[in-house]
Amino acid sequence: MKRTVPFFESPIVLAPLGGPGTVELTAAACNARAFGSLACQYSDPERMRRDIARLRTLTDKPFGLNLFMNNDPPPVDADHLSRAHQRLHVYRDELGVPRPEVPQSPPLYHDEQMRVVLETRPQAFSFTLGIPSDAVIAELKAAGIYTIGTATTVEEAVALERAGIEAVCVQGAEAGGHRGTFLHYEVLPLIGTLALVPQVVKAVSIPVIAAGGIADGDGIAAVLLLGACAAQLGTAFLLADEAGTATAYRDVLKHASASDTIITEAFSGKPARGIANRVTRELADPRERAPYPHQNTMTRDIRNAAASQGRSEFLSLWAGQAFPLAREASAAEIIESLLAQTRVALRSRE
Amino acid sequence: MKRTVPFFESPIVLAPLGGPGTVELTAAACNARAFGSLACQYSDPERMRRDIARLRTLTDKPFGLNLFMNNDPPPVDADHLSRAHQRLHVYRDELGVPRPEVPQSPPLYHDEQMRVVLETRPQAFSFTLGIPSDAVIAELKAAGIYTIGTATTVEEAVALERAGIEAVCVQGAEAGGHRGTFLHYEVLPLIGTLALVPQVVKAVSIPVIAAGGIADGDGIAAVLLLGACAAQLGTAFLLADEAGTATAYRDVLKHASASDTIITEAFSGKPARGIANRVTRELADPRERAPYPHQNTMTRDIRNAAASQGRSEFLSLWAGQAFPLAREASAAEIIESLLAQTRVALRSRE
Repeated sequence: MKRTVPFFESPIVLAPLGGPGTVELTAAACNARAFGSLACQYSDPERMRRDIARLRTLTDKPFGLNLFMNNDPPPVDADHLSRAHQRLHVYRDELGVPRPEVPQSPPLYHDEQMRVVLETRPQAFSFTLGIPSDAVIAELKAAGIYTIGTATTVEEAVALERAGIEAVCVQGAEAGGHRGTFLHYEVLPLIGTLALVPQVVKAVSIPVIAAGGIADGDGIAAVLLLGACAAQLGTAFLLADEAGTATAYRDVLKHASASDTIITEAFSGKPARGIANRVTRELADPRERAPYPHQNTMTRDIRNAAASQGRSEFLSLWAGQAFPLAREASAAEIIESLLAQTRVALRSRE
Repeated sequence: MKRTVPFFESPIVLAPLGGPGTVELTAAACNARAFGSLACQYSDPERMRRDIARLRTLTDKPFGLNLFMNNDPPPVDADHLSRAHQRLHVYRDELGVPRPEVPQSPPLYHDEQMRVVLETRPQAFSFTLGIPSDAVIAELKAAGIYTIGTATTVEEAVALERAGIEAVCVQGAEAGGHRGTFLHYEVLPLIGTLALVPQVVKAVSIPVIAAGGIADGDGIAAVLLLGACAAQLGTAFLLADEAGTATAYRDVLKHASASDTIITEAFSGKPARGIANRVTRELADPRERAPYPHQNTMTRDIRNAAASQGRSEFLSLWAGQAFPLAREASAAEIIESLLAQTRVALRSRE
C-alpha cells in the first residue's frame, strides 16, 4: 500500500535549483542521503555532460536531472520584443553592462539536452512545465530512468499518471522559483502544499513528493503525514555553503520576511516566486517585458553583472515562503539536522 | 512548554463562517467537542443577542464570537460609488431584484456589537482585520473573555502578541473567505499554512491555531506537528447538514476543483478566497466596484436573491483550497471522523 520511490534513502529530495544550484551542492546532498537533483535547463548540452561527469566523480549515489518541458519560444511581436529589450537598457547602464544591439535569441537545444539525459542515464529524470512526448517517455523507460513529473493542481497530477510517469512532485504555492503549471487555467492556480498534497494523494496512485514551504524537520514530518513519501526542499539550501547563491542574494535572504515574496514574471517572462525588488516592481506590467524564454535570455547579462557587483535590486531572488527558516551550514549539516528534527517530530509513530 | 488554549476539548476549532455559518452549526460543533465560533460581523446587535441566547439553549459548552476590526468605511468618491452601484443593476435585472435608487450605506454598529460581546461574555472573542484598541482589550480581559487574533504574516502575529492578545489564529493563503491581513503590504501577502505556521510558532510564545487548507484528519495532524495547538476548519463544514450553505453553492462545491478558487474583491470590496464565477470575472477591475464595506452592503440584495433562486453565478462562493475534501454529513459526524483520522495519523506518537 505504501507508495515509495525505491532508491530514496531518506525523505529528503534536494530540489533542482536553476540559479543557486551547483554540482557540489547536488553531490553533497546525495552523499548525505538526500536525493540530489541537478537543474539542467540553463546548461547547454556540453556543460550538461561536463557537470554530470563531475557529479559522478563527487558521489557514487544516484541523482536526478531536471529540465523544463515547454521549450518552443512563443511567437513574439517584433516591436514588443524590441521594446522589452530596450526597457532593460536602463539597468544595463546602471550596471555598466554593454547594450546589445538586438535581443539575444533563446537557445534551442532542448532535444539535445534530452539526448544527454538519455545517454548519461541518471537514476531519475524530473521535469516541470509539461509532459514529455510518449516517444521520449518510452525512451526514458527503455533506458531505465525513473520519471518524476511536476504538478501544481490535481488535474496535472492525474495527467502525469495517465502519461505513465512514475512519481509526481506536487509543487505547492509556497515554492520558490518557477511555477510548474502546464495545463491552461484562467488564473494561475496557487494551491498551498497543505491543501494540495492530500487531494493529489487521493487522486493518483503513484508516489507523491511534496514541495513548497518546507524548510525544517517539522515541515517534512507534516507532509509525510499528508501522504507524501518525501519532501523536496530547495529554499532550505539557498544558504548552504555549497550553493552558488550570490552574496547579495544571501544578504537579502537573511534579512527579508516571508511577506516579501511575490509571484513575478519580470526576470524570465514566466511566473516564479521570489523576493520583490526594483526589477519586479518596475516590470510588473506585461507590456514592459517579453514572454518566456525571451525575457529570461534577455535579462541574463543584467543578472550576471548584478551578482558580481552585489546589486540585489537587479537579481532574481527566487525563494519559497519558508526562506526565513533556511540555515547557513554545509549541505551535510543541514540534511543531518533536518533528518534529526524529522525523527523527533515523527518519534514513536512507527 | 506546550502552548495550549485551556478550554479547547479537542484540536478542532469551527471557523466563524460569515455566510454559511448558523447557530445550529456552532452548537453542533461545540457539542461534538470542537470549539465552535459564531461569525457576528453581519449581525446587528439585536440579532447578535438573539443568536447568542439561542446558542446557549442549544449547548452548554464554551464558544467564541467573531468580529472584523476595520469598521470605518473609507472615504469614497461619490461618482465611483454611484458607478459601482449602477454596475450591479444588470445582475438585479436578471434576478428580478428592484434597483435601489441610491447605494445603501454600510451599517455602523461595530461599537454596539463589541458591547454585546462584552455583555454576553463568551468564552472567547476572536477577531480579524486588525487589533482592538487597548481600552477594548482591557475590557475583554476584565470580563474574563479570552482573546484570539488573526494573523496572515509573522509581523501581524508579533503585533497581536505585543498588544496582549492571548492566542493567534494563523490564516494561511489556502483559507476560504476574507483575508485577515491588517498591516500594510505592497502586495497582499498570501503565505501558505505550511510555511507560515512554523515561522509564527518561532516568532511568538502564545498558542497558535492553524487555519487554511485543512479539511481532513491528516491535515489536522500535520499542523499539530508544525507546532499549532489546534486547527481551525471552516470549509470542511460547508456541506454540513447544519450549515446555511445555499443549495446552488453546495452544488458548486461538489463539482468544482481546487484550481477554481481565486482571491476576489468583487462581492465585498475586500480580498477573499472563493470559487470563481461570473461576478468575480466581471468585477475584476477595481473601477467596477466600491471598496469594503460599501461593496459588501451593495451586493447583499443580489446575493440573497441568487441564493433563493439557485443562481450560483451571482453568489459569493467562499471556499478554501481544500474544499474538495469537505464531506456531506452532520457536524457531529464530520468532527467524529476528523478526530478519528487525526488519532490514526498521530497514532503512538505520544
